[in-house]
Amino acid sequence: MTNVYDSANQVEKDLRETDAYIALKEAYKVVNEDSEAGELFKKFQNIQMSFQEKQMTGQDISDEEIQAAQELTTVVSANEKINALMNCEQQMSVIVNDLNKIIMKPIQELYQGVAE
Amino acid sequence: MTNVYDSANQVEKDLRETDAYIALKEAYKVVNEDSEAGELFKKFQNIQMSFQEKQMTGQDISDEEIQAAQELTTVVSANEKINALMNCEQQMSVIVNDLNKIIMKPIQELYQGVAE
Repeated sequence: MTNVYDSANQVEKDLRETDAYIALKEAYKVVNEDSEAGELFKKFQNIQMSFQEKQMTGQDISDEEIQAAQELTTVVSANEKINALMNCEQQMSVIVNDLNKIIMKPIQELYQGVAE
Repeated sequence: MTNVYDSANQVEKDLRETDAYIALKEAYKVVNEDSEAGELFKKFQNIQMSFQEKQMTGQDISDEEIQAAQELTTVVSANEKINALMNCEQQMSVIVNDLNKIIMKPIQELYQGVAE
């Protein structure tokens, strides 16, 4: 039996060595070394976060805010470097979701009445 | 180098062997073997989930719903078996948060500009 924290540290180490992480790191670097792409991406992240926060705290999102976000999404989608980064993020999020599903299995089983 | 999914499976195995998981499993069993406690707990879980869902989808929670939830919380808190279970859940959620923090470190570092 090993310690659950030791095993989690192993996941952390292994995640850094996945192709998906190496590609994400590289794509992020490419975006940040291009000041236009870097700023656009930061703006886009801020809007996403503010929408998420408003949604979670039950605040309304105005039509103006939605329109501004849509306009920014169009500009962002036209940027190849950001597009490449968002593809890498998408692939990383698949892995992260998989890892979460695996790790949460014992607890999920318990609440579904599967665990004996 | 090991595979990140193999390491995650090791975390899953180790989590099952933690004192916190064993205690949670036992506390959950105790609640479910007592039909009154079991039903109360299920009711409480359903209310929590419906509140979460409403919050996430931006729906309003009515005063009546809030009052009903508060009344149920009072009843639930008076039940020793459920209290014990909720303490175990609390301890488990500390571990799960820790594990998530560890595993997400590579990605978090990247977005904070720590990764080289």
